[in-house]
Amino acid sequence: MTILETGTIAAGSLLTVAGLTVEEVAAILAATDRLERMAAAERAKILAGRRIALLFYESSTRTRTSFELAAKSLGAMTTLVSDKSSSIEKGESLKDTGLTLRALGAECIVLRHANSGAPYLLAKTTGLPVLNAGDGMHEHPSQALLDLRTMLARLPGMSGRLVNAKTLEGVTVVITGDILHSRVARSNAMLLPRLGARVVLCGPPGLLPDDALGLGLDSKGGIEIERDFDKALKQAGSGGKAVVMMLRIQRERLAGLELDLGEYISRYQLDEERLMARAPEALVMHPGPMIRGLEIAGEVADGPNSAIEDQVRHGLGVRMALLVRALGAGGFESVTV
Amino acid sequence: MTILETGTIAAGSLLTVAGLTVEEVAAILAATDRLERMAAAERAKILAGRRIALLFYESSTRTRTSFELAAKSLGAMTTLVSDKSSSIEKGESLKDTGLTLRALGAECIVLRHANSGAPYLLAKTTGLPVLNAGDGMHEHPSQALLDLRTMLARLPGMSGRLVNAKTLEGVTVVITGDILHSRVARSNAMLLPRLGARVVLCGPPGLLPDDALGLGLDSKGGIEIERDFDKALKQAGSGGKAVVMMLRIQRERLAGLELDLGEYISRYQLDEERLMARAPEALVMHPGPMIRGLEIAGEVADGPNSAIEDQVRHGLGVRMALLVRALGAGGFESVTV
Amino acid sequence: MTILETGTIAAGSLLTVAGLTVEEVAAILAATDRLERMAAAERAKILAGRRIALLFYESSTRTRTSFELAAKSLGAMTTLVSDKSSSIEKGESLKDTGLTLRALGAECIVLRHANSGAPYLLAKTTGLPVLNAGDGMHEHPSQALLDLRTMLARLPGMSGRLVNAKTLEGVTVVITGDILHSRVARSNAMLLPRLGARVVLCGPPGLLPDDALGLGLDSKGGIEIERDFDKALKQAGSGGKAVVMMLRIQRERLAGLELDLGEYISRYQLDEERLMARAPEALVMHPGPMIRGLEIAGEVADGPNSAIEDQVRHGLGVRMALLVRALGAGGFESVTV
Repeated sequence: MTILETGTIAAGSLLTVAGLTVEEVAAILAATDRLERMAAAERAKILAGRRIALLFYESSTRTRTSFELAAKSLGAMTTLVSDKSSSIEKGESLKDTGLTLRALGAECIVLRHANSGAPYLLAKTTGLPVLNAGDGMHEHPSQALLDLRTMLARLPGMSGRLVNAKTLEGVTVVITGDILHSRVARSNAMLLPRLGARVVLCGPPGLLPDDALGLGLDSKGGIEIERDFDKALKQAGSGGKAVVMMLRIQRERLAGLELDLGEYISRYQLDEERLMARAPEALVMHPGPMIRGLEIAGEVADGPNSAIEDQVRHGLGVRMALLVRALGAGGFESVTV
Repeated sequence: MTILETGTIAAGSLLTVAGLTVEEVAAILAATDRLERMAAAERAKILAGRRIALLFYESSTRTRTSFELAAKSLGAMTTLVSDKSSSIEKGESLKDTGLTLRALGAECIVLRHANSGAPYLLAKTTGLPVLNAGDGMHEHPSQALLDLRTMLARLPGMSGRLVNAKTLEGVTVVITGDILHSRVARSNAMLLPRLGARVVLCGPPGLLPDDALGLGLDSKGGIEIERDFDKALKQAGSGGKAVVMMLRIQRERLAGLELDLGEYISRYQLDEERLMARAPEALVMHPGPMIRGLEIAGEVADGPNSAIEDQVRHGLGVRMALLVRALGAGGFESVTV
Repeated sequence: MTILETGTIAAGSLLTVAGLTVEEVAAILAATDRLERMAAAERAKILAGRRIALLFYESSTRTRTSFELAAKSLGAMTTLVSDKSSSIEKGESLKDTGLTLRALGAECIVLRHANSGAPYLLAKTTGLPVLNAGDGMHEHPSQALLDLRTMLARLPGMSGRLVNAKTLEGVTVVITGDILHSRVARSNAMLLPRLGARVVLCGPPGLLPDDALGLGLDSKGGIEIERDFDKALKQAGSGGKAVVMMLRIQRERLAGLELDLGEYISRYQLDEERLMARAPEALVMHPGPMIRGLEIAGEVADGPNSAIEDQVRHGLGVRMALLVRALGAGGFESVTV
């Protein structure tokens, strides 16, 4: 980009979790609670007649449908622009697509893009609130918020707890798999320690650098690296509350690293035996899409420890809250970043 | 699938026509009548605020738009997930996509899939009502229901007749073309004889096995095979009421069978001369998409015998009824399978 | 097509700007004004419960989302059928797709198609009002109307002026770029002179024939050719009101013509120096998608002369007016073509 962008980021944007104060996180989760409990007919009035654009340069089922149904549940109109059938193909810049959507009356843009920082550029150039629905290997902030929401709902004694710098004290979250390429891991690793959690990153060298700095993360804040999944699980399970978050593995990536698939599975797959032996009470999470039999065994995904469907369910609520916040409605009338 | 599924099929699902009693067929058609006659504003309240997912792993215009407009006409929210831009590409299983949609609040999934039995699996694993919008070469039950609805509306003296095991007595339905690969043919061949119709299947050996058992159909129930289209038409037209249902022919399939296109057309195309000579009063049907000039001549498709547009029109009504039934609303509050 | 179509074109169709009287143009723009000023909640009642089909055989962001949001803003239901996931792939004819949409209850079809004249065929065969959203190199009438609307809003002293054969007297519109392949240029070149504007077409020989007749345009009506962009700009800027409309250039097309990209840019790019030196007050327009740095410099696209976002904004209003007109609602109850 040779264009110097001088615009300001609109209040109500969500570009990174780093940009949120703990108070803002608390406010978003409180709004999530409120919206989840509200009657459908009442909810449908909150954004009635408002226009929300979904701009997806990458494929997505769960995030796109989640934002779409969140918007429609609030009564808003949506329009979907995807790379499959749009001017994107014709070489139009992100900036011009954004300006077009703004001129069409969009009041908020939900963006997924392969380039880190694309949501920032879009927010600067359009002045609209932008919700980052995943940008390259950078961030996926709504995912971190829904993961947090799920932990609060499912970990024992957490429900109703105030969200502050001590909320997750005593909680260890083991994130395992392709950390290097995961925006979900990055957003969680930035958010959870600020609320008191201990985050342990786990994976083989090609998928996880030697220290948090190699991931662009602040090394001070409660992030550890443990390459041995069994040890990580055992530590997490041996005191306090444990969460195991598994990440999708792409076969092609393993091949590129000359990692043997069978060996990966034997060392890093979360199966029932491993879970029961080392952290039998741990909450199991996965941002999806998951490949059963690769990073996670089907019996664990479907088992009593699994919070995978809760994640999706709370995703809908969190995204309703984010849209309401972006459009300055329903209790977020005076949002400032 | 190595996973043993132990769930139960939700009431209101429609996986096969074989799973419907004649009484249920009657109830669905009665609801169709009611919904077709209802004022738009009244109809739009029936499923207001409800969420319906359209999950299409195969291309579709008419079935997808039909279910989509049926849902929207009833006031429901829809979200479309297609193989073109979704996690399906990333290898997520049908089961997990279904669980995700359920967690997002979908109350019914309309599924088109290339694999026979996929709707059954989805219904078992999600517990949601599933409407089969076509599964491989297996079934297309909503098509058979709309075909039945169209016959009742267009055959002389049928309108308003009660739906029972004798409703179609005296009616001969000649289904012609690629029977072997047609889920439409299978669903009709299973449904219509149960209401008293005589079904004659017609096509060359490569596209139609020697007996109904080769199609997985019950050979008892009023199904005959007649390879000579002219004879089949003549029989149908020589007494009682006649329906001629033409099926789309794929050129590639003929080539694979070393069937000459010209010969196929001369033997099996429904043109005006053939129709007028042998069954001049027959109702002409086609599930679409049709290739004019191949299995059917344009003048017949557009002629007075044609019920092809009626099929599409009643499809909308039938699908409204199926959605209402699936969600247990509007007179279907106590549906049981 | 060997089928003789004998249907009549439904009132409320918009196939070409040639088919509109100046009075009809005036009525559409008056409705645009009215709809743009109306409260959202009031607007959402105008087409409540009505069904509109968007049938896009070619990729589009701005035109598709513009019609879609226009329809939804008026309360209508929409369904999108695109070449990416539909029976179009299976070889179904435009006619049959149209008849299917009609049978599904669509009351208007918005069509983009690669073939000139496709909207005419669709209107003839379905009898439905059809809005041409771009057909091959032929016409893009809603674009010409929104361009006109934008000129009236942005040219000094024009706002509120009655639309008649003298409205644009004294206005010179320089259209520059790939005129030969541009349906936008053709629709504008047909519409604007009828309202009194002088239209100057500008571009190199391969992209612009030697006279208007070569473009199928009436040579009488105020259309001139000037290959030198600087001269064209200077003429436009030296008296009266000036508009410079830039068109997208496809690199592949230049390559095919053995036109050097650098030379094209030096001769035809609208940059700030050129604009300020020759027509500093000119209104700058572009139908999009634009390639910054090719046919237009970013500083001009974003500068004070630019009306590019206004075009998009008024596009929404114009398309609301066209949809209302097509469905015979909101003051267009007795539309006749």
